[in-house]
Parts: sequence; C-alpha cells; structure tokens
Amino acid sequence: MDFSSDNVAGAAPQIARVLAEAADGPAPAYGADPWTELLSNRLRDVFEAEVEVFPVLTGTAANALALWQLVPPYGAVFCHEDSHVNTDECGAPEMFTGGAKLVALPGAGAKLRPDTLQPAIRRVGYRKVHRVRPAAVSLTQATECGTVYTPDEIGAVAEVCRRHGLTLHMDGARFANAVASLGCAPADVTWRAGVDVLSLGATKSGAWAAEAVVFLRPGLSADFAERRKRAGHLLSKMRFVSAQLLAWLEDDLWRRHAAHANAMARRLGDGLAALPGVEIPDPVEANMVFPVLPTPLRDGLRAAGFVFHDWPSERDGTVRLVTSFQTRPEDVEEFLNAAREVANAS
Amino acid sequence: MDFSSDNVAGAAPQIARVLAEAADGPAPAYGADPWTELLSNRLRDVFEAEVEVFPVLTGTAANALALWQLVPPYGAVFCHEDSHVNTDECGAPEMFTGGAKLVALPGAGAKLRPDTLQPAIRRVGYRKVHRVRPAAVSLTQATECGTVYTPDEIGAVAEVCRRHGLTLHMDGARFANAVASLGCAPADVTWRAGVDVLSLGATKSGAWAAEAVVFLRPGLSADFAERRKRAGHLLSKMRFVSAQLLAWLEDDLWRRHAAHANAMARRLGDGLAALPGVEIPDPVEANMVFPVLPTPLRDGLRAAGFVFHDWPSERDGTVRLVTSFQTRPEDVEEFLNAAREVANAS
Amino acid sequence: MDFSSDNVAGAAPQIARVLAEAADGPAPAYGADPWTELLSNRLRDVFEAEVEVFPVLTGTAANALALWQLVPPYGAVFCHEDSHVNTDECGAPEMFTGGAKLVALPGAGAKLRPDTLQPAIRRVGYRKVHRVRPAAVSLTQATECGTVYTPDEIGAVAEVCRRHGLTLHMDGARFANAVASLGCAPADVTWRAGVDVLSLGATKSGAWAAEAVVFLRPGLSADFAERRKRAGHLLSKMRFVSAQLLAWLEDDLWRRHAAHANAMARRLGDGLAALPGVEIPDPVEANMVFPVLPTPLRDGLRAAGFVFHDWPSERDGTVRLVTSFQTRPEDVEEFLNAAREVANAS
Amino acid sequence: MDFSSDNVAGAAPQIARVLAEAADGPAPAYGADPWTELLSNRLRDVFEAEVEVFPVLTGTAANALALWQLVPPYGAVFCHEDSHVNTDECGAPEMFTGGAKLVALPGAGAKLRPDTLQPAIRRVGYRKVHRVRPAAVSLTQATECGTVYTPDEIGAVAEVCRRHGLTLHMDGARFANAVASLGCAPADVTWRAGVDVLSLGATKSGAWAAEAVVFLRPGLSADFAERRKRAGHLLSKMRFVSAQLLAWLEDDLWRRHAAHANAMARRLGDGLAALPGVEIPDPVEANMVFPVLPTPLRDGLRAAGFVFHDWPSERDGTVRLVTSFQTRPEDVEEFLNAAREVANAS
Repeated sequence: MDFSSDNVAGAAPQIARVLAEAADGPAPAYGADPWTELLSNRLRDVFEAEVEVFPVLTGTAANALALWQLVPPYGAVFCHEDSHVNTDECGAPEMFTGGAKLVALPGAGAKLRPDTLQPAIRRVGYRKVHRVRPAAVSLTQATECGTVYTPDEIGAVAEVCRRHGLTLHMDGARFANAVASLGCAPADVTWRAGVDVLSLGATKSGAWAAEAVVFLRPGLSADFAERRKRAGHLLSKMRFVSAQLLAWLEDDLWRRHAAHANAMARRLGDGLAALPGVEIPDPVEANMVFPVLPTPLRDGLRAAGFVFHDWPSERDGTVRLVTSFQTRPEDVEEFLNAAREVANAS
Repeated sequence: MDFSSDNVAGAAPQIARVLAEAADGPAPAYGADPWTELLSNRLRDVFEAEVEVFPVLTGTAANALALWQLVPPYGAVFCHEDSHVNTDECGAPEMFTGGAKLVALPGAGAKLRPDTLQPAIRRVGYRKVHRVRPAAVSLTQATECGTVYTPDEIGAVAEVCRRHGLTLHMDGARFANAVASLGCAPADVTWRAGVDVLSLGATKSGAWAAEAVVFLRPGLSADFAERRKRAGHLLSKMRFVSAQLLAWLEDDLWRRHAAHANAMARRLGDGLAALPGVEIPDPVEANMVFPVLPTPLRDGLRAAGFVFHDWPSERDGTVRLVTSFQTRPEDVEEFLNAAREVANAS
Repeated sequence: MDFSSDNVAGAAPQIARVLAEAADGPAPAYGADPWTELLSNRLRDVFEAEVEVFPVLTGTAANALALWQLVPPYGAVFCHEDSHVNTDECGAPEMFTGGAKLVALPGAGAKLRPDTLQPAIRRVGYRKVHRVRPAAVSLTQATECGTVYTPDEIGAVAEVCRRHGLTLHMDGARFANAVASLGCAPADVTWRAGVDVLSLGATKSGAWAAEAVVFLRPGLSADFAERRKRAGHLLSKMRFVSAQLLAWLEDDLWRRHAAHANAMARRLGDGLAALPGVEIPDPVEANMVFPVLPTPLRDGLRAAGFVFHDWPSERDGTVRLVTSFQTRPEDVEEFLNAAREVANAS
Repeated sequence: MDFSSDNVAGAAPQIARVLAEAADGPAPAYGADPWTELLSNRLRDVFEAEVEVFPVLTGTAANALALWQLVPPYGAVFCHEDSHVNTDECGAPEMFTGGAKLVALPGAGAKLRPDTLQPAIRRVGYRKVHRVRPAAVSLTQATECGTVYTPDEIGAVAEVCRRHGLTLHMDGARFANAVASLGCAPADVTWRAGVDVLSLGATKSGAWAAEAVVFLRPGLSADFAERRKRAGHLLSKMRFVSAQLLAWLEDDLWRRHAAHANAMARRLGDGLAALPGVEIPDPVEANMVFPVLPTPLRDGLRAAGFVFHDWPSERDGTVRLVTSFQTRPEDVEEFLNAAREVANAS
C-alpha cells in the first residue's frame, strides 16, 4: 500500500468519462474551444469574481509561470524554505523569471508569518540597485507540512505585501484540501484575503494532469498567453485539460475528493498519535501526516509492505504519509493495525 | 468543415480507451510507472536501436528541450526560415537554450539543403568568440509545407553536420506522416540517415497531448531529466502520457492514421489541381496541401462554411488545407464538390 | 601598419591626461561622482534634449542592455543581417533579453529600408501568441560597411516603427564618424529623426573604454540602473568612464577625431579606386573602406607588412580597411604607394 | 572624510602612469596584445602555477562569469548569506547562470564552515531531479565582515567540496588584503587549499577598474572566452585593463597597498575598542571594521563630517568603516580624536 504521495493515485472515473466524451469530433485549437470558455465561466462562479484562467499541465509550470508574470528578472520572491517552489521544481521559477531570487524563510508549520517576512523584505530592499528588488510573496495552501493557513493568516501576509508593494501568489497544488479543511468559500482564502494569483491544482486530487493559473485581480495577466506559449505549455488540444477541470469542479467533486482525503489523513494521524513513542509535531489539517516514528516502527511498517518517504526535518525519524481521493478507510485501518502490531511487539 | 489544422481533430477512441484503463489504482509517479517503461521498450523496437525516451506534452516543449540539450547558450541552430521552431514557438528555443541563435535559411519545399546550409555554417563560424558557435541543425519531417525529406536528403544534411561537428535534430510533429509517405522504416529517416534526436509527435495524429523526445544515439541525454523537470514538463502522473503513446503505436495505429490523412490530402490536392486557375507549387507528400486559389474560389469556399488558413507565401492567394486521422472521404468530396461548383460559377 | 580596426588604436593623450587627473582623492562610488553628473549635463547640451545617460564599458554591453530595455523576452528586434548586434556580439542581445529574436534583414550598404522592414514586421506579427512580438528596430550609424544613414533615411525607418508600435535603437559605435560625415547636429540623426535610444561609442575614436547608453525620450529608462548593475556593468569607480567621455566631448575632440579618420578613409578609398582592377562597391562615408582587391594586390600588400581583414561578402576578394584618430596621412600614403607598386608590377 | 568604502578611493599614481604609457600607438585588439600576455605570465609567477587569466572590469562580472562557468542552470551555489554574490550583485549570478540557485548559509564572521555546509549540500542533493544540483561553493576572502579565512579553514571547506563533487570559487575582491593579513603565499590560500577559480580584484586597492578571473586548475576554462564576450566584458582595447593589473602587481604594489589599508583598519579598530560602550564583535583582519557604536557617538561622528554606512546586523548600531591604500594615518587619527571627543562629551 502506497502512502508516498497523492501523485501515485490514478484518475477519477468521472474525469475519465468526460475526457473520453471530449475526444469526439473537431474543436478549435489552442484554447478557443467551448470547454475552455465554459471553464472560465465556471471558475468565475467558484471564485465569485472576474478571474482570468489559463490551464496548464503541471504544478511546476503553474507556479513558475505565475511568478514569471509577477516578478522582474532582478526581483525577489519571498517564500518558505520548505516550499515547493523553493525545493521541488529544480529551479523552474529561477529559469522562467530570468534569474529572480527566491528568498527562503523559516517558519513553523511551513508557514510564512509577518514577523519573519517583514524584516526579510526590508533587508533585501536595503541597498536599491545592488540588491534584487522585493517583488512578490509566494505561500502554499495547504502547506508542505499539511497545515492550512486561515483567512486571517493570509490576510496578515497580504497586508505586509501591500505595505511594500509586493504581489501575493498562492501555490494551490492542494488548494482543494485547504478549502475543504476550512469549510470556507474559495474567495475567502484568495482574493478576499489579498491573494493576487493562484496556482490551482487538480492533478493531486483526481485529474490526470490539470492545473490552472487563476488571476484574481483584473490587469495582472497581460502577456501571460505569450509566456505560456513560449514555455511550451499552450496545448493545441486544450479542450482535454479544460474538460478535466470542468469534471473536477462538477457537483463539487473537487471538494468531496479533498474532504475524503483529509478525513483519511486525520484518521491516520489520530491512530498513530495513540501509539507509544510516536509524535506528530504539526496539526493534521489537510491530506498529509508527518509523524516522527521510532525506528522499529518505521522499519516494521516497511517490512509489512507499506510505502512512504522519509522526510528531511529537524526531528530524526520523520516520515511523510499522504492520502488521496483513492485512499480507502480499509487501507488506513490496515496500516494502523500493522502499526499497532509492530508497536506492541517492540 | 474545418481543414485549418490537424490540431482541431479530437482523439482516437483506442487512445481514449487505454487512458481510461490507466486511470485505475496507484502507480509510481514521475515516470517510474510500468507504462513508461513499456513505452521505452516499444520505441526501441520501432526504431531498432537503444533509444532513450522522454515523454512530454507539447511539440514546442519537445523541440525546445531537445535543442536546449544540443546547443550552448552561445550556440547557433540552423533551420529553415519557415520551420516551426523559428516561426511558431514564440521563441521557446531561444528561451530554454539561454539565448541561442536560430539562423533561418531559405529553401524550396521548406527543406534545408547542403548548398545553403554549408556556407551559412561557414559564415557564422567565421569569427570565433565574436559570433555564436554553430552547434546544431534542425529539420522538420514532414516539412511545414507538406513535403517529405527522403533518406538521402537527410543523409546529405547529416553529412554537412558531421563535417562541422554539429548535431542533427528532427522536428517530427508529423513524423508518422513522413514515414507513411515514404513507406520506410523509422530508422531509415532517423539514425541511419544521421539524425541524433527526434521530437516524435502523436498529438497531431490522434493523441490528446503526447509527444516524446527520442535520443537516437547513446550518451546524448545527460541531464535531460533535469531540463524537463525544470521546464515544468515532468508529469507527476506520467503514465497518462506514456499510455497514449503506447496506444498510438499499438497495431500500427500511428501509421494507419498517418496513411489515411496523407491519402485524404492527396485526394484534396488532385481534385483541386484539376480546377482552372488553381496551382499547387509543392508536391503533396504528407497531410497538407498548399494550393494557390483564385480569390473567388477562396471566398466561395469560405462562404460555403469551409474553414482554412491563408498562408504567408510569395504566391498571393496561397491557403493551407490540413487533413487528419478524422477526415472522412466524404468530407473531402464535399469540399471538392463545393470547389467545382464555385469554379464553374465564376 | 595596421588597418584592421579602429580598435587597434591606443587612446588620445587628452583623455589619458584627464584620467590621470581624476585618479586623485576620493569620490562617491557607483556614479554619484561629479564627473558623471557633469557628463549628463554635457550630453544634454550636445543632444539639445533632456537625455538620460548610463556609461558602460563596451559597445556590446551598450547595445545588449539597450535592447534588453526595449524588448520583452518574447519580442523581436529587426536589424540588418550584417549588423554588429547580429554578428559580432556572440549573442549578447539574445542573452540579456532572455531570448528575444533578432530578425536579420538584407539591404544594400548595410542599411535597413522601409520596403524590407515593413513586410518583415508584418510577417512576424502575423500569428500573435505563436510568434514573437515585433518590438524594436536596431540600426547602426555609421553602418558596418562604412556608409551613413541620412536623417531622412532614419526618419523613414522611424515612421515604420511608429506605425507598428516599435521602438528605434541606434548602435552608434561610430556615431561620431556619422555626425562628422553628415555635418549635422547629433539631434538631427537621433531624436529629431525618431531614434529612441542610442549606444554612443567613444572607444573606437580615442577613449580607452567608454560607451554610454543615451535615452533620448523621457520615460524609457525605468529600471535600466538595475539591468546595468545585474549585467556587471555598473562601475564602482564610475568617474573613470565618465571622465573619458567628458574629455572626448571637450573642445569637439570627438568630432575632430572622427573627421580626421573619415578623411583618411576617403583618401585611402580614392587612391585605391584609381588602381586597375580595384572596385569599391559602397561609398566611403565614414572611416572604413571595403575594396574588392585583385589577389596579387591583396597578397602583395600583406607581404609588404600591411595588416587588414578579409571580409565576407558576395564579392570575392573584399577586404576591410579601417582608419582611426591615430592614422597619419603618411600611413595612408605609404599604403597607397605600396599598392601602386604592386599593381604596376603585376 | 569618507570611510564608506574602498571604492571611493581614486587610483594609484603608478597605475595611472602605466595606463598613460599604454595609450600610445597600435596594439592588437581583444586581448591579443603584449600587456595581456605579460599579465598571464606574471600571474603564473605570483600563483606558482599554470593559471589561466581573463581580465574583466568589475567584481560582479568576475564573480558571475566564474559561477556561470562552474554551475549548470539547474545547479546550486552554496555561499554565505552576507556574501557579495548573494546580496550585492542584483542577481547577476542568477542571470548569467541561467537561473542557478544561490543557497545562502549563516556563519559567524561571515565565514562558511563545514558543519553548516555539509548538511546543506545533503539537503539540496536529496531529491535528485526535483531539486537543483549541488555544483559549487563560493567563499569570500577577505570576508564581507573583514575577517580572513586561514588556509586550514579553506582546506576544510574544499574537503567538503571534494567529497560531494563540487567546485570551489573564491571571491577575492579583497584578496590582496587577505594575503597581506596572513603573510602567506597566494597559492597557500588558493589552489594549495583547494580553490578552483579566483575572482581577483584590483579595483578596491588602487586600480581604476581591473579584475581578473583566474582559473587555478587546468581544464576548467573551456568556452569562458565566449561567456565573457557574450556578457559584454571582452574589452576591445584590453591592454588598458591588463596594464592596470601589471602595474598593480609590479614591485609588490598590491601587497603594500593592502598591508597599508589593513594597518589603518587595525589602528581604527584598536582606537575605537578603547572607547566606552564600543564593541567590535569580529576581529579586524583586513581593511574593514564593523564596530557597534552608541547612538551619540555615531551621530556625533557624522555631525563632524565623517562618512560611513550603517550596516544591517543582529547588533543595532553596527556601522562599517573601510580603509584603503589612500587612507592616511592622520585621517585615522582625526577620526579617533573626534570619536574620543564625542565619547568624553556624552
């Protein structure tokens, strides 16, 4: 059983069906098709705003292109040191921006906070032409350690951005999980809280490969079409990405997927926390658990066939467990039973 | 009826079916899945060589990443002035390579030929550190004007490359159409003729979005994995691209699709050539026809609801007609009947 | 005797003297010194306008940074196929712009003309997001083959730029020679004719290393300071560049140098043109002559110790002879006498 | 009196003289001149090795081009968080490398140490294709806070590099000060300790604008000439940079300048440390002092006309005082007298 990532899951049957239907007959290429238009309208409803939508294929592309849009080559992006843009995109943001600098900041729960962000912006902005120019902040919702920013926490970061003239980007690879966790409207944790651009990810919760860059304020997306094309991310048969996103949004499938995955993670977390010697430093608010496991437990679970990653952390023994829309309650039970067995034996 | 591009077609049912099957259950992410391994083996059979295969999502990505692999930032790529890399990728090759120069050369039938290529390489290589360094040649098979390079023509270009130490890239967005047209083995127009890297395209002939960079010589692909990741083209659920390519190759679907599209184009070409005032300067060897149409004929066809692009050319009145695996003989007949009617009326 | 380039000359004693004087004592770094301020004022007088001035060290830097300022990464720069930016900067414009495309156009006398420029802009601008966006034109004054644009010729190019929303850059590595040749005001061949940004070169006419990017219209130079710094072209002891430029402008030294070099070239050209078998296809309007020499003459002159470059051209036997502020009339006489001797002997 | 930087100093008369002499008569362009050849030989003597030398004009250019040489676009450079490459080059290393990542590490005395470096390399190298690849380490000698690495300290960093396959770059903008401080041979703190490439700076200690990238191991400099040209840093009249460096090395002028500036800084430091309320956290080993000054003292000194920068630091009240080859003992005395006066008065 594989808890290594929500990327190991397949795709939802609802999405597969819509894709198969979209395969028939001709449609205008490069995004002039009816699916893509529908998607824009649909997302305007979801976000209660005149958003502008650009589907792409990967989260790395969504993030890097969004940052390229916001930041000049001599600009700086402030992000958490554990953020995906900083650690898992092989430098894509640096490449597309023409060499902007990612300023990596610490923060508990993988969150950026005003009291570290503000002095960092001041420090970088200190010597004008000699330093790169503070230009944007990027935060991840849900975060890379499975926590979720509240609207107030986002608002506090946005306030720092406003004060210094920076734009605010949100990496929403697990945006659905955050929204499901908070039980709020998508607008509440995006534009209402001060977010300018969102990388909205569907791949991790049921699509095959579908993300979208969503501009939440008018006037921010000039020339983004050129950037996407130049990056090789303008699909000729765009309908096949837009159709996935439409199916994902249909009947709240996205929220239901996310709520399910979150519940599975919570159950995993609760079960593990009850075992002797196990600690879970951060609250389990989305679809990931980062327990610190005693070595025998970790080894025993792997010997029993469970797959998960060790995770770099200050706490030795930290591992990452990820659930998805495909994780079944019996998978979780099986894992927890095995854990209890190993714990009792040792 | 839409003859504007092979991109307006949908996807083949065989491919849609395989994709739906691949959606079930977990699989390792980022290309460690069984589909991707199978694909590599399958393409080794197809090309009769130990090729290395990297699936990506768009032809622009395949071309630009392949050229990035072959060319230093201070390098030059020689290509035809009408080639897709030069005119239709919004400068993607220039971006990914870090600013390499595309040297655009003329040539009848959209083909590069030794007698223009060789002096161009000499001219650029003339002043060492002051000029960019000749590094690669890129040719398109089938070409952007619907002709096809013979193995000998490719071999002649490759010979110039060898003499000057350049590598040879082939943009094979319509590689299937070329192979079907020549009736040769894929190896005959690639590595046996001296091609080093191929951008192999399935999207234009039945996939929803599936291309592959195929390295035809050992030792050429070092660090390509990093480049693809950094460009945002490493899919987490890679199986969904590999599965498309597998289905496309299965039972020679790719060749059958291409042969059909080629036949439809030939029929279109033959029918149009028989009309008064119509000229077709280049032979129709793949799935595109570029006739020069008298204005009344062009206008009449559009008035009758047929969709096609005007095409920039020395000959005023040139249009482009593209057929695909979905083009039906009755579509062609309908078009030709309409053309005959307009021609007789005017 | 070396006629290979105006770069082989040393530096003018007036400039060396001013530099030595500037060496004494402290001055604010990075361009906040009095020399740099004086230079700005001085150039406002010279150009009769509120120009903005950024000294740099090389012509390649001046051109590439100026184009970076004018062109987005997905932009196109139209230039002559023999222009320095296209052939002699090892792709610096492509690098700094983040991969913009230089569209190289033919033209007699190394000049861009509206009738080739206009259709080229249309061709590139044809397919919006798929092609790079026409953004700037760059012309060289004096040109790379020693001719000089008249104010009217520049105005005609500028008119095309205006019509299509492009900016106009002038590579003025030999701007002094052009101004001296035309006997006009610097404003007449720059902003009055529609030029937006000038790379003003002093190195080739007497400085040791001093160029300046001169913005001729307000509002064009935003963030240029960051670009220059980031490129490593912001000198800490900026006074040493500004002082060179001040000395070069003082007492019309720049015009006197240029007029002298032009006169030497004309004398060379006249002398050579009188010899049997020698042709000089382009008029000698600046400090360069490009004669087509019979092989024995070319070989004989080299055997006699004269140094000059063969020049790639449609005409076999073309060589380049360059004069400078240091070329003496007796150097020219010596060369011509040797030429006459060889010509008579063969 | 200006203690804000060694960049506010002028140039040494010995250097001005040599430059004026070099101005006379022709010499081959682009580095083929005799001065540049002499310089290479001279630096081989100085470094007791077959070094390869590339003069450039600024320290930012030297560092950024050196790192471009060592690091792929998807590479990581480990450096101190206060290093010039990280904070004072407006992202030049990121631009030239094509977007490599600078991983900024803490460390007392602005020094990198194995116990922070090693885990950082492991962390970045952890997830292969997803993260940038550890490729080089850059350290600054003397450091940005005026301390000096001993040969053993450098050797320990180099040992970590060797173990992980990284190259080692040294930013030697104040290399002369470090060598003078240690009283060692240049080789002892460079290649003998494991450094691969040195940015050797002369500008801060008496030249007008002269730096050199010095490759300390054979085989490292391939294509560096193209990179320098493409960056706009290949001077046509290269002799004028090489001549500066020759004069700077002649008769140990460089070491004498540096020893003098170091002595002036030490005297400044000793004098300030004796005042009540003044602390100097780091040892004064080169030509910079970073005292923490009580506010009245800081204000009083400025009121008395002394110029110096506040410096960002954990300790409020930190300022930076820099001495140069032009700083006179009486300047230091004047400063210290004023300081004593203010201290006594408050």
